[in-house]
Amino acid sequence: MARSSSAAVPTVRDVARLAGVSPGTVSKALNGQGQLRPETRSRVQAAAENLGFRPNQLARSLLSGRTYTVGVLTSDHFGRFSMPLMEGIEDSLGACHVSTLLCDGRGDSIREQHYVTELLNRRVDGIVVTGRRTDARPSLGRLPVPVVYVLIRSAASHDLSVTYDDRQGTELAISHLLAVGRTHIGYVGGPERHLATRTRREATDDALRAAGLTLRSTDVLIGEWSEAWGRAAAALMANRPRGQRVDGVFCASDQIARGVVDGMREAGIAVPEETSVVGFDNWDVMTEASRPPLTTVDPCLSKLGQFAASQLLNAIEGRELGSGTLLLPCELVVRDSSVPVLTRQAEAASVA
Amino acid sequence: MARSSSAAVPTVRDVARLAGVSPGTVSKALNGQGQLRPETRSRVQAAAENLGFRPNQLARSLLSGRTYTVGVLTSDHFGRFSMPLMEGIEDSLGACHVSTLLCDGRGDSIREQHYVTELLNRRVDGIVVTGRRTDARPSLGRLPVPVVYVLIRSAASHDLSVTYDDRQGTELAISHLLAVGRTHIGYVGGPERHLATRTRREATDDALRAAGLTLRSTDVLIGEWSEAWGRAAAALMANRPRGQRVDGVFCASDQIARGVVDGMREAGIAVPEETSVVGFDNWDVMTEASRPPLTTVDPCLSKLGQFAASQLLNAIEGRELGSGTLLLPCELVVRDSSVPVLTRQAEAASVA
Repeated sequence: MARSSSAAVPTVRDVARLAGVSPGTVSKALNGQGQLRPETRSRVQAAAENLGFRPNQLARSLLSGRTYTVGVLTSDHFGRFSMPLMEGIEDSLGACHVSTLLCDGRGDSIREQHYVTELLNRRVDGIVVTGRRTDARPSLGRLPVPVVYVLIRSAASHDLSVTYDDRQGTELAISHLLAVGRTHIGYVGGPERHLATRTRREATDDALRAAGLTLRSTDVLIGEWSEAWGRAAAALMANRPRGQRVDGVFCASDQIARGVVDGMREAGIAVPEETSVVGFDNWDVMTEASRPPLTTVDPCLSKLGQFAASQLLNAIEGRELGSGTLLLPCELVVRDSSVPVLTRQAEAASVA
Repeated sequence: MARSSSAAVPTVRDVARLAGVSPGTVSKALNGQGQLRPETRSRVQAAAENLGFRPNQLARSLLSGRTYTVGVLTSDHFGRFSMPLMEGIEDSLGACHVSTLLCDGRGDSIREQHYVTELLNRRVDGIVVTGRRTDARPSLGRLPVPVVYVLIRSAASHDLSVTYDDRQGTELAISHLLAVGRTHIGYVGGPERHLATRTRREATDDALRAAGLTLRSTDVLIGEWSEAWGRAAAALMANRPRGQRVDGVFCASDQIARGVVDGMREAGIAVPEETSVVGFDNWDVMTEASRPPLTTVDPCLSKLGQFAASQLLNAIEGRELGSGTLLLPCELVVRDSSVPVLTRQAEAASVA
């Protein structure tokens, strides 16, 4: 299709001509302002509809001082953690007719600075900053519009960050492993440099201690965020003499957990009969393809996005934004990788 | 941080006061227009910088008739096919200082219509429509701004759609299987209702015919887009008597291919020694975790996004947009799942 020239877009003047009124009257009629006879107002509305006239939102924004636009600055290359987050952000903003201007800073501070300038030039009402990890990132500094950090945290305490509660999520996983009768629990993490790896190990340690158990250092395996690492970790665990083997494993990601499940099966250890495995992320691609499907901690990223965006909208409307880090709870999703058949039979019996 | 009031944003008046000139002079100085003494211009520039003044892009847009904003309407819930596409779209647009307003229509025509109205109200310069599949979708109709469909196709022939060449991608896969010495080739597809499943089967058939071979109907397995289906298909293929088994499999997705590779291994068939497997998508999560890593067809979605956005930019600048469907070539990425050791040794020998 050849581009229609912009002359084809109907203007206030076109509406005025068709309705037989002045352009000023069109404006009053469509904004619901001023003293007009009802029949004039409806004649103008009919003319506007007839021509497919759309009031110019730019002109409106200049008057109201709001653009009903929020910038979203991500460093996640539109990755899989951003997706559910973005869905939640859009749910909140869309309900208030606020559009999102998306910028991918790609973790490069020069790109980010460029985008922040661009967003401010475009007079966004606020900015959401997000990224793939929960680790702290440098603050964008004090800007003339409110800023909320989500998933990723700002290193500056005067900023508001909203992320999920990693410790509480870990507690859900460990309580579940204990509830299904596991007593010797191991932890398989990603790289040591990531906050998630360290927080989940510490929380595992604390939760076991609270139950009168210990997380032995030989049962802590730190590596990568990959299935291959999960398989390698399973092989290490399977190589131990039977009496020294873990009977429950908490993995810091679903990719690792899937690798652990595959590695255990290939080493002849039955999951969940002999060993229960719990992951983290609730990433369908991993949980569903795993044999058996994975029990996992869901960080509820979509809710996180919704909540962060609603905080930003409140601030745009003039309410206090708050500061520091808000932690939202995770949820446990139980599937087949963690519940031994014996436990299930006992549960069925107690229900019957 | 409490929200700074909008009064904190410096205006043209503030700059004028600090520089000791009129607001009109500030405007001329910062737009590089009008007759001004160089020292006046630099005094205004220094004052603007000092105050952190940003010219109001809304006011500029009202004058130029362009908003330097493009709407992206997706039906992919920010899924994994949208992500590389978006990266490419942003590469093209960002280089021209055009921002993207992202809308997730979620495949719901009422949501979509709402967003299109919203985008037109916001005076976007153009719209990109995308989705997760190559199947045709209803046209948005003739809009006052140019529209490009990418990945997904418009059902209307007057629209411009840009997608990848499924037939050519399939030909790459089949030529490769033939080149490594395979002569009995099977095809494992997703659901019949998806264009990709049908196109890749037909192209497999044609490519084999051109090589003097046949795609037997018993070697065509149609199912789902999942690893579980790939494993089931592998079990079916492995159950055949040895003389009737395929020695090469082209799978319509990497998820299927990974399942086929796992299923073959578990049935005692060595990949790639006995059977070569090729996937489609080049999705790292699947290709890297697979044992062995997957040879696959890369639809080059990022390039697709870049190309579609550059076509849209051309149309925004007044050039003819064109119509119909443009197909961009796929690329073959060779990894270990397809090249039998014997072939590799022969190649090494011929190089030596």
